Amino acid sequence: MPQLGLLHGRVWASLLGKLLRPPGAVCIGAVHSHSQGTRDLTPQQMVVREKILDLVVSCFKRHGAKGLDTPAFELKEVLTEKYGEDSGLIYDLQDQGGELLSLRYDLTVPFARYLAMNKVKKMKRYHVGKVWRRESPTIVQGRYREFCQCDFDIAGQFDPMIPDAECLKIMCEILSGLQLGDFLIKVNDRRILDGMFAVCGVPESKFHTICSSIDKLGKMSWKDVRHEMVAKKGLAPEVADRIGDYVQCHGGVSLVEQMFQDPRLSQNKQALEGLGDLKLLFEYVTLFGIAEKISFDLSLARGLDYYTGVVYEAVLLPTPAQAEEEPLNVGSVAAGGRYDGLVGMFDPKGHKVPCVGLSIGVERIFSIVEQKMKTFGEKIRTTETQVFVASPQKNFLQERLKLIAELWDAGIKAELLYKNNPKLLTQLHYCENMGIPLVVIVGEQELKEGVIKLRSVASREEVAIKRENLVAEIQKRLSES
Amino acid sequence: MPQLGLLHGRVWASLLGKLLRPPGAVCIGAVHSHSQGTRDLTPQQMVVREKILDLVVSCFKRHGAKGLDTPAFELKEVLTEKYGEDSGLIYDLQDQGGELLSLRYDLTVPFARYLAMNKVKKMKRYHVGKVWRRESPTIVQGRYREFCQCDFDIAGQFDPMIPDAECLKIMCEILSGLQLGDFLIKVNDRRILDGMFAVCGVPESKFHTICSSIDKLGKMSWKDVRHEMVAKKGLAPEVADRIGDYVQCHGGVSLVEQMFQDPRLSQNKQALEGLGDLKLLFEYVTLFGIAEKISFDLSLARGLDYYTGVVYEAVLLPTPAQAEEEPLNVGSVAAGGRYDGLVGMFDPKGHKVPCVGLSIGVERIFSIVEQKMKTFGEKIRTTETQVFVASPQKNFLQERLKLIAELWDAGIKAELLYKNNPKLLTQLHYCENMGIPLVVIVGEQELKEGVIKLRSVASREEVAIKRENLVAEIQKRLSES
Repeated sequence: MPQLGLLHGRVWASLLGKLLRPPGAVCIGAVHSHSQGTRDLTPQQMVVREKILDLVVSCFKRHGAKGLDTPAFELKEVLTEKYGEDSGLIYDLQDQGGELLSLRYDLTVPFARYLAMNKVKKMKRYHVGKVWRRESPTIVQGRYREFCQCDFDIAGQFDPMIPDAECLKIMCEILSGLQLGDFLIKVNDRRILDGMFAVCGVPESKFHTICSSIDKLGKMSWKDVRHEMVAKKGLAPEVADRIGDYVQCHGGVSLVEQMFQDPRLSQNKQALEGLGDLKLLFEYVTLFGIAEKISFDLSLARGLDYYTGVVYEAVLLPTPAQAEEEPLNVGSVAAGGRYDGLVGMFDPKGHKVPCVGLSIGVERIFSIVEQKMKTFGEKIRTTETQVFVASPQKNFLQERLKLIAELWDAGIKAELLYKNNPKLLTQLHYCENMGIPLVVIVGEQELKEGVIKLRSVASREEVAIKRENLVAEIQKRLSES
Repeated sequence: MPQLGLLHGRVWASLLGKLLRPPGAVCIGAVHSHSQGTRDLTPQQMVVREKILDLVVSCFKRHGAKGLDTPAFELKEVLTEKYGEDSGLIYDLQDQGGELLSLRYDLTVPFARYLAMNKVKKMKRYHVGKVWRRESPTIVQGRYREFCQCDFDIAGQFDPMIPDAECLKIMCEILSGLQLGDFLIKVNDRRILDGMFAVCGVPESKFHTICSSIDKLGKMSWKDVRHEMVAKKGLAPEVADRIGDYVQCHGGVSLVEQMFQDPRLSQNKQALEGLGDLKLLFEYVTLFGIAEKISFDLSLARGLDYYTGVVYEAVLLPTPAQAEEEPLNVGSVAAGGRYDGLVGMFDPKGHKVPCVGLSIGVERIFSIVEQKMKTFGEKIRTTETQVFVASPQKNFLQERLKLIAELWDAGIKAELLYKNNPKLLTQLHYCENMGIPLVVIVGEQELKEGVIKLRSVASREEVAIKRENLVAEIQKRLSES
């Protein structure tokens, strides 16, 4: 069976399909957010996360990535001057003696630091971990000051655009597998942007700050972005308008061709390099069968300082209804790009290791899925218990304990009530509420006859089984179900 | 098949069994520790961790635990006065406006805070996550300032010692499953300790500090601990010596009976409660079939302030050789106990929720396993790639890209070299080095005949397969292997 199908099956069968059972299971809990802008994750949320992260990580492994882990905090200097205007959002640790430390802001900079520190010239790695940013949390969007990132990166000197194309393929596989609805991947190139700025007459000193203004398109209207560039950042109005003509453009490979012919842009060496690579990229994504998902978009900038070439961002396409409500809120769920200079910043001799990568916006995806489930009132099992050990009579704790130890030692997921003499009804209700499929019942009668009663919670059927055959019988039933 | 066997199989087959292959796979890397006392985890280390954590988490799930996650940092006040003399090791975040925050020191206090905050009266949860402590790292012991904890806790009012006994059972299942060698679980009770202090004549104000001195037994000799209590903490010598008589004692349930008869201890109400519970605990662990692993040890104290009842600690028993080298270094690999007062500290009305739990010292376990593997020079695969897509001729990048996309879409783990025209030998070497079992080869000849060559890296056998049957054939082979 195709794995994407299988994964999709695994995820949605449990997320959306089987979710109406067990009856009593709890619905995705309300968000437990704290004054400090973080939150606890409830068991229901953890189940959703586990399944989504499983799908993401299997995709990363399918593409040959190795796992890597770096510490939550880095030396403060490692993080400085990597995040442009966002650097103010970095959490610093208090100086309690020793080095000045900061919590990591993303997983990319620590990865680059790792490569340089260990002189690694080639590596395909994935990293799932938390990052921290001092943003004012806007809970609606599922934004918190602590959140999970899933990164995949390819480091090394290779022939152009082959790893870059694989990154786009991975984004497509994951977003299709999660079935979040229709999506589009906007692609641009930092060199095209810089070329565009140059030919429009932006002074080079303003490239970075204008770039981060452009990055706000989508969240802000062109009118507001233009105002920011002119009023706040002192850009000449006519320069802003020239930029305006370009950033309206988006399309397929034909737009790349068109830009090659553009009288102004075609005069800029950098822009031509970027366009050349994009042309190649479109050739490769066509071979990967995902060309119709890719859109060359001159308004895509990406805020981070460290990008040097192609940049991309996956957005979920709003349904007509959504589009009417909030026309500007295109939901970015994955993004990335090429950063050929970052590793060199950590190498004493400045040796460069070209890198390209992507980050899946899993938090956004978690909240979309949780929202869906709330809307459909779907329930979810938070434990995996297969068998419950019960007794109808008093003074059977000893028998129950002996029995359950046998099940545990056989690898069977089993529970009992931590009471000396629970009522049978209480025990059976627990099974129904928790969605436990099987109950093992031991009482005086069974003890005399050397049997155990095995009850199916769903059908309420009970059969007597020889004590010594119990484990085998349970394993048989579980393998069948 | 019994799951422990299965898990043990899964873990050790790959950790110790199959480890000599693939030939070129890399050995567990050297530790990449940083000046700040943290370290990066290499892909080799990540593979070991993934397998060990899989075993631990499956055990927690087998006992019906739900997953829960809490933030890396808590309000500073949440952590204060919970860790006794270790509080100085807490990392604080810099005051950048807003609340004062600290990095979590363990997973227990955040769990208690969660229960109180959400008025949860009953919960069986597990939590795998990192914690941070400003200790001077002693790398030999595998101690770092950032490390992973695996906690299992049972919160709620239940009949005595049933959950406590399950915690000991879980520790046994995990340590047996990991096959780290022979182990012992020391058990004691805070009430017995306090009773012992009282009858020995320790002033109540000194209970906590004397308790943390006793906790150092094992790491320190009785002589040194006695010195600390008398010289540093101002305990009367004869009081210290009375304590000395008790803390030498360890044994099975018979020692519990003996202490019931102890002229001094039997006069102390608290001690008698503790002894009564221990007696019950021994009854239950006997039913669980793990009694021979449990030792009542009056020297076991556990440093943390929040324990209120039974406490336990699992130690690996040194081989005779090890015992000679470092007689005092008993390796604690898991520990826990009962803390009935902690949740109440977070509840505005002080409502209590009794809790008992355990923490697996996975870092210690990771380093033991890594050490073993180094000693045996064992190798490990860091990727899961199943198929490599190669071509013997130039200008076949397009074919390779089309082919690999087909494999990825079928859920097959596949890689190729990011080069336009790699040499066939280079491609085959890559497979051998990375331990990739299958190679798909496409060239002019194959293209003409509408076939693909499928090569087994191990046997070097090649067969031609119809292009349209390739995916099915590969899946057949992979399911067989």
